[in-house]
Amino acid sequence: MKHELRIIGFDAGDTLWDNEIYFREAEREFCEILSDIQEINVVIKRLYEIEIRNIEYYGCGIKRFVLSMIETALTTNKFTIPQKRINDILEIGKNLLNKPINLIDGVKNTLDILTQKSYKLMIVTKGDLLDQKRKLNKSNISHYFHHIEIMSEKTEQEYSKLLSKLAIKPNNFLMVGNSMKSDINPVLNIGGFGVYLPHKHNWIHENVVNNCNSNNFLELEKIEDLIRILNCE
Amino acid sequence: MKHELRIIGFDAGDTLWDNEIYFREAEREFCEILSDIQEINVVIKRLYEIEIRNIEYYGCGIKRFVLSMIETALTTNKFTIPQKRINDILEIGKNLLNKPINLIDGVKNTLDILTQKSYKLMIVTKGDLLDQKRKLNKSNISHYFHHIEIMSEKTEQEYSKLLSKLAIKPNNFLMVGNSMKSDINPVLNIGGFGVYLPHKHNWIHENVVNNCNSNNFLELEKIEDLIRILNCE
Repeated sequence: MKHELRIIGFDAGDTLWDNEIYFREAEREFCEILSDIQEINVVIKRLYEIEIRNIEYYGCGIKRFVLSMIETALTTNKFTIPQKRINDILEIGKNLLNKPINLIDGVKNTLDILTQKSYKLMIVTKGDLLDQKRKLNKSNISHYFHHIEIMSEKTEQEYSKLLSKLAIKPNNFLMVGNSMKSDINPVLNIGGFGVYLPHKHNWIHENVVNNCNSNNFLELEKIEDLIRILNCE
Repeated sequence: MKHELRIIGFDAGDTLWDNEIYFREAEREFCEILSDIQEINVVIKRLYEIEIRNIEYYGCGIKRFVLSMIETALTTNKFTIPQKRINDILEIGKNLLNKPINLIDGVKNTLDILTQKSYKLMIVTKGDLLDQKRKLNKSNISHYFHHIEIMSEKTEQEYSKLLSKLAIKPNNFLMVGNSMKSDINPVLNIGGFGVYLPHKHNWIHENVVNNCNSNNFLELEKIEDLIRILNCE
């Protein structure tokens, strides 16, 4: 990668720590709550539809997920679900917010070396700000990051605004993430660099086949490969 | 105020636009939903308790409010509230997110003049990021702001981190807001300036008597008074 790179943006969930695995687990618990009432497939399909519709209102993150589960439970069963189960859904959400943070292998070492080499690091994510800050603190990596940017949608326009706000030129900026659609393509389109780190739990709506031929793009298998390609060894 | 001030942070709700009035309205609707089951005073007291407890999980903003109303409704009535009413609570939340934005008198003129005079303006708020961005866009004032900072708690530490991140010296920074506790005192304590603009709908938990004698502090009646005290006339 080009040596004019000075600022590296990292997606948070499933790039730095496991995330989707906990959402899938919560989804299974949710389906369990409704299991005597409705088939799992129907519940999941309905939940996804409601989640997508609710981005407009609630953005991304755990609170949208909880509010969408409640809406799904109420409407799936024509408002006759036993009430305690709504409370159980609130509990699923609170448990999700209290999950241990499981950093992906190599994250701490990579952040450490990049910081030593004077790269400025930031988080660029669609999640919920408070939740992301909590995760950074819990996992003792918040001191590596100069800035946390929360975007409601990771579009070219939003990335341009971010770079302009922080006075960063696109060709000084590398974005690292597990979604071609959200982390890589919009950044390449505005003249930045992208490193795609696929994660096995990629969310159903994020899967885009990587057929990217840009010179500013690389797909890596693990985050520590960044050290090599940025010549930090 | 001192002429070395170059950067002005504004609190959002009830400093730039009406906010609490809509929350109070939503609260009345919520009490109406439970009116055949429980007295208003009891419901409100319980809702406040649950809201405070839930800051830890959900932060501030509308989603915490909605999730707390649901929790209040479920537990107030020992899980026997008619289900459609839970859906009505979800609707209260969505309506709250769709309210018209009513800018407080003089806001646009003040932001306009301060921008012309080359002050850098930013939003510093505890609310929900997506919701704040939506309000800024809806009210056509987003272009005045260089940065939006969302804090889970407006503490000295958080203000220090913000100024350090943006390379701003405390004595170049003025914070304007309707809460002594959140907007003014922590900023004065780290060497910044504060302008207190009390709002008639100040939230019950925000009320702190102003007995501030700092030279870096002023209480103003209306936002346009900033133009005078910053010598922009």
